[in-house]
Amino acid sequence: MNLQSYDECLKILKQNAILWDRVEKVALTNALDRHIAFDVIANDNYPAKPVSAMDGYAFKFNAQSELNLVASLPAGSDKKLFLNENECVKTFTGSLMSDDTDTLVPVENVEVLGQKILIKKPVAKGFAVRQVGESYKKGEILIKKGTKLNYAEIALLAELGLFFISVFIKPKIAILATGSEIKDLGEPLENDAQIHSSNHVALACMAQKMGADAIIMPITKDEPNAVKEAIINALKGADILLTTGGVSMGDYDFVKIALKDEFNIIINGADIKPGRHIKIAKSGEKYIFALPGFPYSAMVMCVLFLRVLLNTWFLQDEPYLTAILDEDYEKRSPFLEFSAVNLEHKNGVLYANLRGKKLGSSAIVNNLTNQAALLVVPKEQKFIKKGEKVRVLLML
Amino acid sequence: MNLQSYDECLKILKQNAILWDRVEKVALTNALDRHIAFDVIANDNYPAKPVSAMDGYAFKFNAQSELNLVASLPAGSDKKLFLNENECVKTFTGSLMSDDTDTLVPVENVEVLGQKILIKKPVAKGFAVRQVGESYKKGEILIKKGTKLNYAEIALLAELGLFFISVFIKPKIAILATGSEIKDLGEPLENDAQIHSSNHVALACMAQKMGADAIIMPITKDEPNAVKEAIINALKGADILLTTGGVSMGDYDFVKIALKDEFNIIINGADIKPGRHIKIAKSGEKYIFALPGFPYSAMVMCVLFLRVLLNTWFLQDEPYLTAILDEDYEKRSPFLEFSAVNLEHKNGVLYANLRGKKLGSSAIVNNLTNQAALLVVPKEQKFIKKGEKVRVLLML
Repeated sequence: MNLQSYDECLKILKQNAILWDRVEKVALTNALDRHIAFDVIANDNYPAKPVSAMDGYAFKFNAQSELNLVASLPAGSDKKLFLNENECVKTFTGSLMSDDTDTLVPVENVEVLGQKILIKKPVAKGFAVRQVGESYKKGEILIKKGTKLNYAEIALLAELGLFFISVFIKPKIAILATGSEIKDLGEPLENDAQIHSSNHVALACMAQKMGADAIIMPITKDEPNAVKEAIINALKGADILLTTGGVSMGDYDFVKIALKDEFNIIINGADIKPGRHIKIAKSGEKYIFALPGFPYSAMVMCVLFLRVLLNTWFLQDEPYLTAILDEDYEKRSPFLEFSAVNLEHKNGVLYANLRGKKLGSSAIVNNLTNQAALLVVPKEQKFIKKGEKVRVLLML
Repeated sequence: MNLQSYDECLKILKQNAILWDRVEKVALTNALDRHIAFDVIANDNYPAKPVSAMDGYAFKFNAQSELNLVASLPAGSDKKLFLNENECVKTFTGSLMSDDTDTLVPVENVEVLGQKILIKKPVAKGFAVRQVGESYKKGEILIKKGTKLNYAEIALLAELGLFFISVFIKPKIAILATGSEIKDLGEPLENDAQIHSSNHVALACMAQKMGADAIIMPITKDEPNAVKEAIINALKGADILLTTGGVSMGDYDFVKIALKDEFNIIINGADIKPGRHIKIAKSGEKYIFALPGFPYSAMVMCVLFLRVLLNTWFLQDEPYLTAILDEDYEKRSPFLEFSAVNLEHKNGVLYANLRGKKLGSSAIVNNLTNQAALLVVPKEQKFIKKGEKVRVLLML
């Protein structure tokens, strides 16, 4: 079997990525972690006029240490005042500076004597004034299309007066775990050969974290017709179907058979570990990702393939970093290998280590807990020495 | 005004932290990003019996290159088989290994001739068998109390057969933005002195990211009775109230007055920038955090104070890291300063830089976009040279 390299697979996957131009409007209060569907550009300077940055007394700068208080302007007032030399107006944080004033002396710096203000601690010209465009200038790109909106982007959109915004529709991802040995959440195990399914809930969480909606399908036994029907049903309401199990070289890989009927297989195996038997199929605008049954593999494949497609749609890069390996590493497979590691910042340096990670099969779910990342070990490399630079890929 | 240091403030805050022992049960499918309320300990080895890690033929290891195929065991079957020397049983990934077998030769390594299996590529004893306890051993602590559950923790809980689990109840955080100059989302501005509120939506997002439920209260003008009533109302349904605006030294700080009536002020100002005028009050099991009106300050204070209380409840540490400063930095205040920076990994090293960050007041919301972190500049330090190690604090 001549397996494609991971790079070749990604190239094919990207070539087969449909354009994700599906957009919906959501209220800003529902927009956290959504991917914005347009470039946000400042259509004015902000602030548009000079604004007080503190509570104090606004005046036209001069060297005087005594000012006459002629008015008090609460925040939100746009009363026009015209001041003479040596006059000042009480001005609160966030208020417009009166015309003819350019400097604010803070309340802490003065002594008030009736309608007189004595400046005890002088300030420089322009002090405590938010100048026009201090936050941003007209025409500045503030948020790029595709950005995942965090709290500060939400704040910025609110400040800009936007309330109902366009975001990319979340792809709907159906998850179908197959296997005669797996039982669902809450179901008792009937014999020692049965296990509880973990793939479906894990992949649903991953899909959510990647910005998609997850639909968990009923678990399906290794029976060709049952699997085929489940696949057809799942695809009715989903853009992408993730299956787990049934795709290895064994006799019971009915999923593989079902796939061939209507879908065009675009990726059929990859020269990587885990996930050698990954299959991706496409039909029109729908995809099937046939992931392995072992949960560690399935979760890693989800990041190595599904996330690439979603990030292509959302205009995001894959989060690869360079780290220093904190122990020797011996690769056991002849493939490009992705191995669970802990990332740790120490003294300004990013280290990767395998503390607590267990050697064994691709079934070890707990190798991915505690925010594990993936160490990327190239195909040709057999051994990495402690202290060498390595490539790591963040999970979710 | 003799301001307390940030360390002193945190000490007081932690001393005044009530015990957050409020727990609820949630389905695993609703548990993503929740903080688990118990230590998860393996109550058995996993797997409890040896399991096949591949599709292949299970046999008792010997040097023979020919085996008699006597049965086929699909996954999920616990049929007991007793094999003689040189007999094998077809076994699928995830299936129990038959008694008397210890090694699996994968399908790729053999040639099948009727009921005979010819081993073309021999394997070592124990090959492709998940040994008892490979994933975890009985008694192992798998997830620590307080852990924020990510996809892999959810997978692990499913694997363990847990479905309905205890998590910490989310604290309810009401957010009350005050200010006569601020207008709400979707409201038109009536004059140049008005601005759109960004604090309330931003803090709501931050509260959610910190693991709390957010309740956004109606914006309240700077009028003593209105503010007082709003505070009383907000606290009826909330564990914590965040106010913004109205707490500086100006004439309009009614919030401060309202606070004094029923609440015990535990923190009254801090020797930091931004956030010098922070106030935290407590009454019984409820808290008020009176945050500044400028949104940059309010968001930073939310991380510097509110998150510390929540992380105390959820048994989490604050995410401080060491980075290398990628440019010279001159501190402009005499306080301990928290300044927005970008973090960037380059070649295994974590750098902090101020690219795109604007100098100015504490009103600049966009200094916190693009996943900004905070550079921590000690009170005594005036200048940091490019290349020096600095302390940074991750935001959310």
